[in-house]
Parts: sequence; structure tokens; C-alpha cells
Amino acid sequence: MLTDASEHNELSASNDDVYAVDKELVRAVEAAIDEADRNALEGILDELHNADIADVIEFLTSDDRRQFVILLEDSFDAEILIELDEAVLEDVLSAMSPLAIANAIADMDTDDGVYVLGVLDEDHRDGVLRAVPAPDRAAVVEGLAFPEDSAGRLMQRELIAVPAYWTVGQVIDYCRETEDLPNDFYEIFVVDPRHRPIGQVALNRALRSKRPVLMREVMEEEINPIPVDMDQEEAAYLFQQYDMASAPVVDTDGRLVGVITFDDIADVIEEETEEDLMRLSGVSDESDLFQPVMRTTRNRFSWLLINLFTAILASFVIAQFDATIEEIVALAILMPIVASMGGNAGTQTLTVAVRALATRELTEANAFRVVQKEFLVGALNGGFFAVLIGLVAGFWFSNPALGGVIAVAMVINMLVAGLSGALIPLGLARVGADPAVSATVFLTTITDVIGFFAFLGLAAWLLL
Amino acid sequence: MLTDASEHNELSASNDDVYAVDKELVRAVEAAIDEADRNALEGILDELHNADIADVIEFLTSDDRRQFVILLEDSFDAEILIELDEAVLEDVLSAMSPLAIANAIADMDTDDGVYVLGVLDEDHRDGVLRAVPAPDRAAVVEGLAFPEDSAGRLMQRELIAVPAYWTVGQVIDYCRETEDLPNDFYEIFVVDPRHRPIGQVALNRALRSKRPVLMREVMEEEINPIPVDMDQEEAAYLFQQYDMASAPVVDTDGRLVGVITFDDIADVIEEETEEDLMRLSGVSDESDLFQPVMRTTRNRFSWLLINLFTAILASFVIAQFDATIEEIVALAILMPIVASMGGNAGTQTLTVAVRALATRELTEANAFRVVQKEFLVGALNGGFFAVLIGLVAGFWFSNPALGGVIAVAMVINMLVAGLSGALIPLGLARVGADPAVSATVFLTTITDVIGFFAFLGLAAWLLL
Repeated sequence: MLTDASEHNELSASNDDVYAVDKELVRAVEAAIDEADRNALEGILDELHNADIADVIEFLTSDDRRQFVILLEDSFDAEILIELDEAVLEDVLSAMSPLAIANAIADMDTDDGVYVLGVLDEDHRDGVLRAVPAPDRAAVVEGLAFPEDSAGRLMQRELIAVPAYWTVGQVIDYCRETEDLPNDFYEIFVVDPRHRPIGQVALNRALRSKRPVLMREVMEEEINPIPVDMDQEEAAYLFQQYDMASAPVVDTDGRLVGVITFDDIADVIEEETEEDLMRLSGVSDESDLFQPVMRTTRNRFSWLLINLFTAILASFVIAQFDATIEEIVALAILMPIVASMGGNAGTQTLTVAVRALATRELTEANAFRVVQKEFLVGALNGGFFAVLIGLVAGFWFSNPALGGVIAVAMVINMLVAGLSGALIPLGLARVGADPAVSATVFLTTITDVIGFFAFLGLAAWLLL
Repeated sequence: MLTDASEHNELSASNDDVYAVDKELVRAVEAAIDEADRNALEGILDELHNADIADVIEFLTSDDRRQFVILLEDSFDAEILIELDEAVLEDVLSAMSPLAIANAIADMDTDDGVYVLGVLDEDHRDGVLRAVPAPDRAAVVEGLAFPEDSAGRLMQRELIAVPAYWTVGQVIDYCRETEDLPNDFYEIFVVDPRHRPIGQVALNRALRSKRPVLMREVMEEEINPIPVDMDQEEAAYLFQQYDMASAPVVDTDGRLVGVITFDDIADVIEEETEEDLMRLSGVSDESDLFQPVMRTTRNRFSWLLINLFTAILASFVIAQFDATIEEIVALAILMPIVASMGGNAGTQTLTVAVRALATRELTEANAFRVVQKEFLVGALNGGFFAVLIGLVAGFWFSNPALGGVIAVAMVINMLVAGLSGALIPLGLARVGADPAVSATVFLTTITDVIGFFAFLGLAAWLLL
């Protein structure tokens, strides 16, 4: 099936939501790739924004991604690469020549060039770098030297910096006459003679001011210079806290070396929040969806292995009471309930605490109050559910004492769950660990062990 | 303990991270509130950005929040209110007079006024609205009429729109001469005579262009007008996909009625990602941390209740095999392992699928391939862990047949977990439900039931 541009327009128009990429579009691209029909492919892509083309590539199989690149050869916009997910970008780069990659990098802002190069393995990277023109190469190599997830990796070097004694008119004339301006910018930075930022002027302020006004007079002096080695998560915090459109990045001497813009930060915010989510669920890499089967299997394996150990640990606890279970088989039937409720209640608290730590809503300043609150919530919900499950179990097995035992075990485990859900992430944060990575394992181990132990132990003590 | 501004500066300086609000600062504010020392309080706050003052308020107890407001009376910046979390804003508003709230709302952009009013209950709201000056009142009432989480709620009405035949020079002069411009703006919108947006000019483009150039010549025509009733999540998608600084919002006739800016969207991105995380963990409200104990208890109760039902369902499955368990008590000891591993493996897949659906990386275009992949991952990890747990169980109870049974049950449950983890969210999305809300319950019910049934069923069949 061939699809020309007008046909595709029709498809999109019939689809009334905001997403440009739908199943029909992907199928049309796949058909064009199958038939190696470059004209058809170009016809479809002509209508699309680069970010949407990147999405189309993500929906293809690994083989089709490579075919796509080979088919289009050099008529491939560099901007598409920077929109691709890492695992997909690997596929695409593997089908490109080092020279083609080098040319694409030369066309990009430095932060984007650094991202693309960062995906290549070391050997491949050197070959590509040699082909990048000298000035761009220096900037990108310097960018690569910054640690991953640092401000230095996010920033672009292209920016506008002027002295404080310039007038607004001079700045406007400078912008009108200079060819090589950044693609987009939102602020003009004011620097001292040693190139340290001393203020910034939002474009709308520059636009509102009369030509003879000095930059010194209109500049905002309360700026938040970001050190190159600051973690991207902290940079994102500053952007969100102070609603910034862009921020100056400074080296260790305080000199202006780059700028980070809000669109870089939007990606960081999503990435960091998603990272918490993934880590709490035991998924180590956020681009998991596009990874090949073996890599995904391996990534998830280690988490499952840890979980196996903790599950076996819980089994050891149960094994201590095998004689009791042999006597009263109802215990085996009921025991997963106590453990499961504790796990769920603890996960609720844990999730709230992990996010609150990440957004700085939970700090030492209110830690005690939060733990206290979670203890109370655990006590209250523990009380409700103790009564409920006590009645259910008592009637089910016509054994009021059994109902009493499970009720008490439930209260205990819900209290422990609330306390652990708050204390575990706080403790991990205090020792400098990432609460999202390991908190769930600790929590479910505790709620399983305490859940089984409290229920079976009480039963052994009171019911035999 | 009283703290003046210089002392506080010292405290901040000694703390080398980016967060302005630390424990000492909060303690100092609490001390000033305790002693009802308005001067001390103002001294501390003078040094702080409004967003940081909002954070300080969030760290206080409910009572202190109200005292804080009462102490400062009218010298309270409206900007602080809009930075507050909903539950905290409620506390603060409850200590303010309707007139004070009305004045604050009159000072805000419409989207912020709508947010503040939205937190008040209906009765309170009317009293406040009557005190808001007429033009602002109309704008805010109209904003409130839009559904929650819609573009209409996010947008501000303050914007700059000019006809296409204006020159860049005319626009600059207009900006210089007009008093009542929006606080911040990033784009100038070009409208046709019926006030429909036909293009937009980024400020940096306006700044670069010579005065006689027509807006028509420099405007970007590929714009993404956002309908007032569009869901904020879709609007956020457009911003991220196309790296927009601001976007025009249009009414049902396509007329320009407002603008959404990147900083509104940054909050939405975080909110929506966090919502997925919270919902997967059974927390219904993201501002949970600041809510009073009773409300948090109630919010979490319903999820735990559902979980209790599913846990009892799993117990019914176990109860079918009570005779088998009485015979072989090792089954009771080992059975939680199979269920737990299935639950964890399924959660991994589920989390990846839910996020991929939210970011449109998983759609009909690749659903089949993703399900296929998850089946394979489940089979591979299931195989590994089957061998592992088979050996452990076989040696532990010196019973190779028992090892074989648990191994087979493990493979079955891991396969089911992988498939369910992918199919449940896809199915929920297809019927229009939010995959994040209910997916976890379905998943753990399935992995528990299948886990217990496969293990105990096989044991009853093969080991007795």
C-alpha cells in the first residue's frame, strides 16, 4: 500500500485527537520501507514535524529503523535524532556512517550533540568525533567530560551575553546584525568584564524598554547561576521553584559558559519523576519499552532475584510454625491476607514519602510530624480492617478466637507498615541513598516477615 | 529565639545546597509566630523569594499557618498563595478575610485566580467573588466554568495579539507604550480580523527583525492552537512534543481567548507523572502529605478495602486445597513465593506499560509487539527462577518432586504476570479507563490467584 501526503492528511484529519502519529501512519511508513519506495516515504514525512517523525521511528522494529535510515540516506534531519529515545537512537546510529553522524552533530546545539555522542560506544565515538569540524568538536568533547545528569550535559553554549553599560538599542541592533545567534533564546545575560553573569534581561523586558535605557537599569539582579557540575535534578528544582525560562550556567570560576532552557528542564522533570516510579517498581531503566528482549530480561532479573531472597526469608518465618499450621490449616488460608494488607498500606505511605522527599516537601523540618501522622493513619486504618477481617475470619471458620488473633495481627502489621513506609525512605535519604531504589524491598520484607510472624506467632501462643 | 535577617543569611550561606528553606529557617519562623513577633517574621521573609516563603508555610502546622497569616495581616504577597499546595492553601485562606482574598485574586493572572477560588468551597467562594472588582471577576468566573484539568483552567487571559499587517517596529512601540502588558510573555500572537490566531512570533525573532518588516513575514504559521476544553495532559504533550514556550488557547469558534505558558506546563508534567505513580500505589490524591490525618486515612481506606477483597479471594483459592496442605505442610511454607514473584514481575511490566501509554510510546501501532516481548521476557525470567526455586525447594524439603512442582508453577505464573502486566493496561486504555487507577488490583488478583492455584493444584494432582 502506498500513501501519498494528501491521503495521510485525510487520515490525520479523521482522527480528532492531538497525536499526529497513529497506527495507519506507521503502517504506511512500514509499507514504504518494505517496498524500498523512497518517494513514498519522503511524501509521508514531508507533512510531519521532526518530533513526530522521531515517534514514527520509535514505533518501527529494529530492522525497519535501520532500513528507514538507509533508504533516506543523507536527506535526514539532524533534529530527528535528538528526539529519539536512547535505545532507538542506537539502532538509527548503527545504520549511519560516521561522517553522516558527524555532520548531524555539527548542525546541533552542543547539548544535543553531547546526547547523541553519549549513546555511541567509545570506539565508535572516536571515529565520529574525528569527522566533526574542530570548533564543534571541542565544545562537544568538553560537554562529554561533564558527568551524566549534570548541568554541564544539559546546557548549550550558544547564548547572548552583553556588558551592563550597553543600551537596549545597542542590544537590539546587535541581535539584528549578528548572523550566528542561538536558534532560540529567552533571556539576554549581562556579564562583568571577567564574563561572570551579574544579571539577566527577559526578552519581553528588553522589548518594552526604550532604546537609550541601559541594560544595567532593566536587568534582573536576582539570578540563579547554575554550576556546571550541579545535578540536573537540582537544576530542575530551581527552574520549577522560580519559574525560570532559562538560566546561566557557570564554571568553577563563576564565568558564564552556557545556558539551560525550560525545554531541557521539562524533559528532566518527567525523567526524574518517572525514574522514581520505575525504581519503586523495580525497573532499572526508563527506556525499557524500546529495549531488546534480552536486555529487558537482564535489567529486570536482578530486582526479581532480590525479591526471591526476601520471599524465601518470609518462607523461613512460616516454616517456624509448621506444626501450628498442621494443627490449624485455616492459618495457611488466612495468612497471606495480613501480609498483603501490610504491604499495600506500607506502599501507599512509601510512595507519598519518596515523592515528597524528591520535591523537598518532606525534609528534616517536618519529618517527625510526617512519621507521627503515618503512625496515626496506620492505627486508624489498622483498626477498621482488624474489625472487618476479624469478623470475616471468625464467621468463616466459626472460630471467634481465630478472628481475634487475625485482628490483632492486622493492627500490628498496619502500624508497622505505616511507620516503615515513612521511616525507610527517610533513613535511606539520610545515609545518602536513593530512597526510590531500595525502599520497596525493605518495606515488603518487613511487612511480610512481621505479617506472618505476628499472625502465626499469636496463633501458636493463643490457639493451641 | 529571635532571628533577624543577617542571622538568617548566615544560616543559608552555611548550607551549600540549592534549597533556600532548611530546618533552622523553619524553626526561626515558628519561634517568631510563637512570640507573635511580626517584625522578626518580616525580617526573615524579606530575604526570601515568594516561592520559598510558600515552602516555609507548607512546613508549618495547620495552626501555625493560620497564625502566620493573622500576624502578617495585609502585608501578604498574592504570589505566595499561588505557590501553595491545595491542602495548605485551604488553611491559609481560612485565616484570611473574604476581602483580603478578593484583593489578592485581583492582583493575579486569571489562571492563578481560578486556582485559588477553586480551593474554596461554594459558599465561601461567592462571598469572595462579590468583593473582586468587576472585570477580574468576570474573567475568573469564566475560568471556573471550565472543567478541572482543562486548558481553560490553565490559561491566562493576559496576552499580546496584533494584526498581520503591523510592522515589527509598530509592535515594539506598542509594547513600549502600553502600561497593562502581561507580567511575562514569550510570543506575540498574530490574529485575523475575527481574532483567530494565524501565526506567532517568538520574541527573539521580533528582536532580530528590522523595524519595517511586517509581522506576516516573520511569523511562524505552524502553530498549535489549544481548544479551551482540551485536557491539560494533552496540552502538556503538545508542549513537550514541539518544545513550545507558550501556546494560544482558542474558544469553540477558534477565537484567541488566552495563552498557556511553559511554567504552567512544567507543573502539569510533574503532576501527571506523579499521578500515575500515586494511582499505581493506591494513593488517590497527590497532595496527600499535607492533608490532615482523617482525610488521608479516608483517602487510603477505599484502596485497602478493595485489596482486602482480593486478598480474601486468594484465600478462597487456598481453601480449596486445605486437605492437601494438611498432608504436605511445606506447601503452605512455599506458596507465598510463587505468588510474590508473579506480583513483582507483573508490576514491572505494568509500570512500564502504564507510563508508555501515558507518553504515547505505546499505542495500537506497537501493542502487539510489546505484548509479545513481555511474554518472552516472562518466559525467560520464569525459566531462570523456576530452576532456582526448584533447586532451593527440592533441597530444603529433600523432595525433588516438590521442587519440580514449584518450578512449573513459577514458569506459569511468570508468563501470566508478563502477559497480564501488558494486557491489563492496554485493555483498560481501550475501554477508556485510566490504566493507572485499577491496573494494580487486577494484576495482583490474577498473579495471586494463578500463583496459588497453579502451585497447590499441581501439588494436589502430582504429589498426593
